[in-house]
Amino acid sequence: MRFTSEQRLDDGVLVREFTLGEIPGTLWTPAASAPAPLILMAHNNGLPKGEPRLVARARYCAAHGYAVAAIDAPGRGDRPRCAADEQARAELRRVMRDGGSAGEIEEAFEAFVGPLVDKSVPEWRATLDALLALPGIAGPVGYSGWTAVGIRLAVTEPRIAAAGFFAGGYVPRAQREEARQVTVPLLFLLQWDDEGNPRRRALDLFDAFGSREKTLHANLGGHTGTPWFEVEDGDRFFGRHLK
Amino acid sequence: MRFTSEQRLDDGVLVREFTLGEIPGTLWTPAASAPAPLILMAHNNGLPKGEPRLVARARYCAAHGYAVAAIDAPGRGDRPRCAADEQARAELRRVMRDGGSAGEIEEAFEAFVGPLVDKSVPEWRATLDALLALPGIAGPVGYSGWTAVGIRLAVTEPRIAAAGFFAGGYVPRAQREEARQVTVPLLFLLQWDDEGNPRRRALDLFDAFGSREKTLHANLGGHTGTPWFEVEDGDRFFGRHLK
Repeated sequence: MRFTSEQRLDDGVLVREFTLGEIPGTLWTPAASAPAPLILMAHNNGLPKGEPRLVARARYCAAHGYAVAAIDAPGRGDRPRCAADEQARAELRRVMRDGGSAGEIEEAFEAFVGPLVDKSVPEWRATLDALLALPGIAGPVGYSGWTAVGIRLAVTEPRIAAAGFFAGGYVPRAQREEARQVTVPLLFLLQWDDEGNPRRRALDLFDAFGSREKTLHANLGGHTGTPWFEVEDGDRFFGRHLK
Repeated sequence: MRFTSEQRLDDGVLVREFTLGEIPGTLWTPAASAPAPLILMAHNNGLPKGEPRLVARARYCAAHGYAVAAIDAPGRGDRPRCAADEQARAELRRVMRDGGSAGEIEEAFEAFVGPLVDKSVPEWRATLDALLALPGIAGPVGYSGWTAVGIRLAVTEPRIAAAGFFAGGYVPRAQREEARQVTVPLLFLLQWDDEGNPRRRALDLFDAFGSREKTLHANLGGHTGTPWFEVEDGDRFFGRHLK
C-alpha cells in the first residue's frame, strides 16, 4: 500500500489517497492516535469512492472515531475502463430508460453487477489485509454500503464483525442465495419509494438474512433521499458492535 | 389533576401518581426544573401504565429531559372492570387461543379494541389539558406507543407534534382509515416476527400514513423482543422534533 497524497481536515481527520497494486483507494482516519476500528465503505454498483455522499459519510465516521476506507471497483471511478463492463452498463441504462420489464432489468443488472461483485470482493479482501497492517488501525472491522459486495464479504471474510447495507432491491442471484449465510449483526437501510429498488424484493432480502440480530430502517422518499440522521444511526449501530 | 403520591428516583426523576376525575395516571418529570417537552406514553390495547416495560421507557425518557405521562384506559389497569369490556377481551383471547382465522381474530379484536380507543382518546386529551397547565411542562408534545390511540390523537389533537407507534398489525378499522390523515413526523416500530401482528398488515399501515417524514424500524423477534437500543432511537427521534 502506497500513499499518494495526504490532507488534514479542519476537524483533525486525516485523508490519504493510496494505491494497492492497481487499486486506488482513500483512507480517512480520526484525529486521535489511538488504534481505531475500521469501516470498509462501498457505494452500490461501483459508484466512485469520490462521490460526495460517500465522502460525507466517511468523514462523519472518521470524525466519530473510525478509520474508513473506500476503493474504486475494477473499471469504475479512477480506474481504466473495460469494454465488456462499459457495454453491460450501457445495456442496463438502455433497459431502464426504455422502461424494460422487471425480468429484462434483472437480466441486464445481473450481467453488469454480477461480474463486478466477483471482481471487487478479492480486491476488498486484499485492501483489508493491507489496512490492518497499518499502525493506528486495529479492527474490529465493519462494512457499510453496497449490499451485494457486503453479502459476499460477510460470508467469505471472517474479519467482518458487523454490516450496514443500503437498498437491495436488485442484488445479483448469487448474493441473494448467499444472504442466508450472513450471520453478522446487520443494519439494513432502504428508501420506501426507491425508484430503482423494488420494495418487496428488498423486504424479502431482509427476511432472508441469517443474522440473529438484524434491524431494518426505511424512510419515505426516493433512492438518494436518505435523511442524514441515518448516518448518525449507522454510527450508533457500529458503536454497539465495533467499539 | 390531583397528585396522590410522589417519589424521587436515584437519577433525580420525580414520579408522581395522579388522578384526573376517574382517570388514574403517572407523571415522570426530569430532575432539572427547566420546562420540559412532554411525551404521552400508552401501551398497546390498554395494557396497564404500571407494566414494567412501559415504566422502563418512561424513566429513560424522563432521565433524558422529557416529562412523560401514562394513564390507564377505561376498564383496564387500576380502574374498575366493565362487564362488556371483559367479555370482549375474553372472546379475543378465546379466538387467539383456539387458532381462529384471520377474519375471526380481526372481528374479536375490533369488538374489544375499537370501543377502547373511542373511550380512551377523550381521556388522553383531557389529561393533556391538565398536564400543560402544570408548571415545568411546556410542550411541544409527542406521543409514544399504542398505535390506534396514537393515530386518533395525531388526527384530532393539533398539539401532537411527533409520534412513535409500535406494532400495528391489528388496528381497528376506523384508525386504519384515519392513518392517511396523519401528517406529523412518525417513527413506526415493529417486530419482524410479531406473533400477534401480521407483518404485511403492519407494513401496509406504514405505507398508508400521510406523514411526509416517516421512518420504519423493524427488528428480528417476537412481540416483546424489541431491543433496548430502540428506546434510545426513540429518544433521538423525539429529540429532533420536540427539543
